[in-house]
Amino acid sequence: MHQNVAMAPELTLHEDRLFSADGAVRQISRRIYAETKDLPIISPHGHVPPAWMSENLSFGNPTRLLLTPDHYINRILHANGVELSELGVPVTRTDMTEADNRAAWRTFCAHWSDFNGTAMRYWLTDQLVGVFGVTQRPSIETADEIYDTIQAWIDDDNHRPRALMDQFKIEFIATTDDPCDDLHDHEKLAADAEFSAKHRVAPTFRPDKYLTPANPDWNQRVDTLGEVAGVDVSTLAGLTSALENRRAYFKAHGGVSTDHGIQDLDAAYLDAQDAERLYGKARAGEITAAEATALHHHLIMDQVRMATEDGLTLTLHPGAFRDHDRATFEAYGADVGCDIPYAIEVTRATREMLNRFGNHPNLNLVLFTLDEDVYSREIAPLAGFYRSLYIGVPWWFIDAPESIMRFKQSVTEMAGFSRISGMIDDTRAFCSIPARHDMMRRLDAAHLANLVAAHRLDEDEAIEQARKLVVDNPKKVFKL
Amino acid sequence: MHQNVAMAPELTLHEDRLFSADGAVRQISRRIYAETKDLPIISPHGHVPPAWMSENLSFGNPTRLLLTPDHYINRILHANGVELSELGVPVTRTDMTEADNRAAWRTFCAHWSDFNGTAMRYWLTDQLVGVFGVTQRPSIETADEIYDTIQAWIDDDNHRPRALMDQFKIEFIATTDDPCDDLHDHEKLAADAEFSAKHRVAPTFRPDKYLTPANPDWNQRVDTLGEVAGVDVSTLAGLTSALENRRAYFKAHGGVSTDHGIQDLDAAYLDAQDAERLYGKARAGEITAAEATALHHHLIMDQVRMATEDGLTLTLHPGAFRDHDRATFEAYGADVGCDIPYAIEVTRATREMLNRFGNHPNLNLVLFTLDEDVYSREIAPLAGFYRSLYIGVPWWFIDAPESIMRFKQSVTEMAGFSRISGMIDDTRAFCSIPARHDMMRRLDAAHLANLVAAHRLDEDEAIEQARKLVVDNPKKVFKL
Amino acid sequence: MHQNVAMAPELTLHEDRLFSADGAVRQISRRIYAETKDLPIISPHGHVPPAWMSENLSFGNPTRLLLTPDHYINRILHANGVELSELGVPVTRTDMTEADNRAAWRTFCAHWSDFNGTAMRYWLTDQLVGVFGVTQRPSIETADEIYDTIQAWIDDDNHRPRALMDQFKIEFIATTDDPCDDLHDHEKLAADAEFSAKHRVAPTFRPDKYLTPANPDWNQRVDTLGEVAGVDVSTLAGLTSALENRRAYFKAHGGVSTDHGIQDLDAAYLDAQDAERLYGKARAGEITAAEATALHHHLIMDQVRMATEDGLTLTLHPGAFRDHDRATFEAYGADVGCDIPYAIEVTRATREMLNRFGNHPNLNLVLFTLDEDVYSREIAPLAGFYRSLYIGVPWWFIDAPESIMRFKQSVTEMAGFSRISGMIDDTRAFCSIPARHDMMRRLDAAHLANLVAAHRLDEDEAIEQARKLVVDNPKKVFKL
Repeated sequence: MHQNVAMAPELTLHEDRLFSADGAVRQISRRIYAETKDLPIISPHGHVPPAWMSENLSFGNPTRLLLTPDHYINRILHANGVELSELGVPVTRTDMTEADNRAAWRTFCAHWSDFNGTAMRYWLTDQLVGVFGVTQRPSIETADEIYDTIQAWIDDDNHRPRALMDQFKIEFIATTDDPCDDLHDHEKLAADAEFSAKHRVAPTFRPDKYLTPANPDWNQRVDTLGEVAGVDVSTLAGLTSALENRRAYFKAHGGVSTDHGIQDLDAAYLDAQDAERLYGKARAGEITAAEATALHHHLIMDQVRMATEDGLTLTLHPGAFRDHDRATFEAYGADVGCDIPYAIEVTRATREMLNRFGNHPNLNLVLFTLDEDVYSREIAPLAGFYRSLYIGVPWWFIDAPESIMRFKQSVTEMAGFSRISGMIDDTRAFCSIPARHDMMRRLDAAHLANLVAAHRLDEDEAIEQARKLVVDNPKKVFKL
Repeated sequence: MHQNVAMAPELTLHEDRLFSADGAVRQISRRIYAETKDLPIISPHGHVPPAWMSENLSFGNPTRLLLTPDHYINRILHANGVELSELGVPVTRTDMTEADNRAAWRTFCAHWSDFNGTAMRYWLTDQLVGVFGVTQRPSIETADEIYDTIQAWIDDDNHRPRALMDQFKIEFIATTDDPCDDLHDHEKLAADAEFSAKHRVAPTFRPDKYLTPANPDWNQRVDTLGEVAGVDVSTLAGLTSALENRRAYFKAHGGVSTDHGIQDLDAAYLDAQDAERLYGKARAGEITAAEATALHHHLIMDQVRMATEDGLTLTLHPGAFRDHDRATFEAYGADVGCDIPYAIEVTRATREMLNRFGNHPNLNLVLFTLDEDVYSREIAPLAGFYRSLYIGVPWWFIDAPESIMRFKQSVTEMAGFSRISGMIDDTRAFCSIPARHDMMRRLDAAHLANLVAAHRLDEDEAIEQARKLVVDNPKKVFKL
Repeated sequence: MHQNVAMAPELTLHEDRLFSADGAVRQISRRIYAETKDLPIISPHGHVPPAWMSENLSFGNPTRLLLTPDHYINRILHANGVELSELGVPVTRTDMTEADNRAAWRTFCAHWSDFNGTAMRYWLTDQLVGVFGVTQRPSIETADEIYDTIQAWIDDDNHRPRALMDQFKIEFIATTDDPCDDLHDHEKLAADAEFSAKHRVAPTFRPDKYLTPANPDWNQRVDTLGEVAGVDVSTLAGLTSALENRRAYFKAHGGVSTDHGIQDLDAAYLDAQDAERLYGKARAGEITAAEATALHHHLIMDQVRMATEDGLTLTLHPGAFRDHDRATFEAYGADVGCDIPYAIEVTRATREMLNRFGNHPNLNLVLFTLDEDVYSREIAPLAGFYRSLYIGVPWWFIDAPESIMRFKQSVTEMAGFSRISGMIDDTRAFCSIPARHDMMRRLDAAHLANLVAAHRLDEDEAIEQARKLVVDNPKKVFKL
């Protein structure tokens, strides 16, 4: 089975990856990077399941770890003719045998060159070499040996999540959680004195489903929320109270932020009577589409108001068309690779929100987009004026080296470094976290080195700035 | 007349043009380019008149060859005060004397510096030096001598289209043809055993005018199509049959694709009865503007359906505002330099089309745009999921070195190289075809060399990838 | 107070700033820049108050000169928690004591690193070192010494505006003026034979407030205009006559252009009767919002018509959402840092205007945008066809090194250098004018050097082109 392996090309990690090819600039990049590469990781927004850490679960097998849950990889393989079912999708499946997982891994390795030039290829190489100790380029010939190498790594108890939190130097990590979650995983982790002395795992309040009266399951969600909060939700005042109650619960369990996946950035208060009236119609199942949207925009605005009161940082993620392919959604569910970005508008949409709360001293808002044009045209100018607003780092499709450099080159000139959120990995791929943060630190160094080489910044300033981007900015923005 | 020519600056082609200035990266670029520069040309979409090849026509004179038909050049000269009539526009004119052509050429040479930094300047230099053997920079002083040089080249029978197909190593070239065309030029070329052993000239089915009931001449066009197809087109079922008939005729004559110049990307089926009813109104001249649009979107969707059945690749070219200046259109007709790009929307517009047919195993769709933002924001993410969808290369205004590099740097990270169509020159300027393909191969090399220099790809992978972009991708996408 | 100053890092200006890091390309940049760096400054659009020059006023103090009036700086400081009032905003205030001004300066210096990587940091460093002779990096420790250095510079009578016009080599500068202004400052300057032999200070006709019937103060403005022009403005014909009268007055006082800050680019003539009718309603305070917009678009179109007659160049500045934060506007007024860009549409919006006047031989239009995408997608293609249309250089938020390079790299390929306006600084910060023009000349050199290094242009062509961008283009576009 491994007959050609001896001849397989090496897979390596170059110490200067992502730095400028120019010798002098590369030297500057190296010196800047040297000051940040070993700093602990702060990951203030992501999607790692908290149970992995609280239960200290094994990652299972290479396919389960690296392919099945990763929609970045699924989509490229799907486009190139692979059925999602071959990859074990959806993650809730329990019928994948070892043979199935090996077959999936072989398929992936056979498609290795389809990832040439992508961000996925970059992160994967970093993990394969840097984390798992793989030394050969993936291919149909090397697939099984690589599978075995990764499997052996996974099976080592030193490679369970809690040990990796140490090895990866993850000081702070946020999960994403349902408002009704009792956060028992977070409680268990906080109760472990040895673990919690070195690591903080914070929940994130993600109330989308409770703020979207247009959704078919909204009424049932609201009922459950009322029960969990112990609040009568027959009125909007009740829902408001329930939401405030759960935000307080999250904050008491270490939460530092709330997260909102939304279609657009409009937010506007209805007057109190209208809001109650629409809420009544929604609860009665009689709300129109336009009214549901108006009520949704009211509820979003009210989350901002709550943030000014409880101080939880609020992150906004607009602009993804979810489940673009209905047939795929019906067969496999959400988050399997067919969410697609679209253009958004920021300047007009955020005016009411920012006029009301944008300079509030207790508010931190972080705004992301998949539409890179608006980062420079609208978000950076807004964040260069409103005190509460921070520019989120490139997200999802634009979380890749060239895209990030374009982001840095455009927003920095308009708003400076102080208005940027710092690195947010937004990932559920636990083992990719060091690779992603390291990528950003390398790109910070590359960008700052360019400024130094153009004589726009002195090297000592660049080094100080690089450290701020890794440490100070996320601590300020997420109040750590 | 030529008194200053001895002192005229040289016009040269540097062997490293378009490569990185950095020495090490330039060396990598050279090594990659060396592997693709001599590969045959595959040109799966363009606008060279087939009669040029079947009749083996002379190009006439320098103005007729390089200026009159080239709207890229016309527009820049027009902006700088030259009347289009001075350049022989429109191409259907037959009254240009040798003196007129020489005068046009002098005007062009006097404006040479107006092309500094443009793609036109790049292609022209490549042709002037590399094809025609010109050695002096164009100027008012050198214009006549250069005219004579090119005229002598044209007058050499070894520089007729068929011989140039050999010299330019054009293995495959597609023309663009009316559905009613009997394709006698293609038949004649196919019947020439010596020629067709080495070259394939394929027709492309371009049915825009038959799918646009809002156009004043639509009814007459449909009548003609019915006659040519031998089908009664009094019903929509008849038009459908006629279109299928002509697609089959094109396919039987070597056609591999259909091409669609459209205003937007919306496509949606009407129900069968509504469609027939609107067709009836359209045929009776009683259709409203909104109905005409709905019927047009129905007809576009049905072209995609036909493509899944006959397997012809379908290329979509949205986003050009045609004939922006009415006075110019009235005086000179279409395609004379005043078509202007505008912003388009892709994610929502293509949903119905891609939900219905986007993963069909027999369909290949290639999507172009003049709005470079949507390449990375929408098209690359869609092509990174839907199996039928390929990213067309930068087209028209963005078919220039820096624009192409921006394209490569943004779409590759999101979708990889496997989802890109490969080079499509889209030109009617026959002698520019080698320059355009060479430009893309150089830019492929430059882009891949950057990835190698950033340690994101090994050099052997880059070389293999470069060859795929030139050979495998177009063959796969156009089923050659 | 100055105890740490001895240890403060130096503040320096590197002679190669903004050039490529690559040694060979840097050498080319240097040679190109050497040919333009000492050329006189032509500043055809800006906001320096003419009284500064006619009265030869002192700049007062460092805060009054560099902070209070500069909304680029205000906004970044505001975002980082500084109250605008601390900075002396608005400029009409007269209550700032020396202690206040020193405190403002200390605050600014304490926030110096918040400007890292911005355009403001670049211009400020250039002024601090190059104009005022500062040698230390701003910080809380060095603030007072730097304040003293600048104050001493200001207090030197050789640093009043008229002397600086010599030292800065400003050959031509345009101010921006109200149509009712009697232009006495310009008259006074023109009457000074010694000054006017070397410098020309031209007024610019800025009629926005008279062309916007939706504004509450429009009727009163129109009344005043009628009085100043000595024309009965009870009819639209009267307003038209008054505007023509004032344009002629401006032209007679050396004016070369009119400037228009607008929401969108739509312009369309109403028929004469409708226009008069809407004007009557507007004058009677009875016009609807939609009618006011239609009348505004009519009046804009008529400004273009007037430009074809009197030959004043017309500059269009669309796309800024003014006074985004109402509370800030109410407290401090306009132009204090909360204007925000938004996306604009050009291709369709300008069609009527360009179809009617776009190729008129007496018209020069310069189009700016804050939406950099439309520069390449729409404006460059339009300017590459219509003879009257020139591409304005990056404006305001995109008036920064990386943004300008993106602009050059994208528009040049499509339209060439001949369709670009040349440098326009658009500033009220008098002492930053040399820094801004020098920045553009450096970026011209850097961009042209890249073209030379990629073998797309010969070095002698690049040098000639660089000189044209500084001298010929603005002289042609503004008819100097």
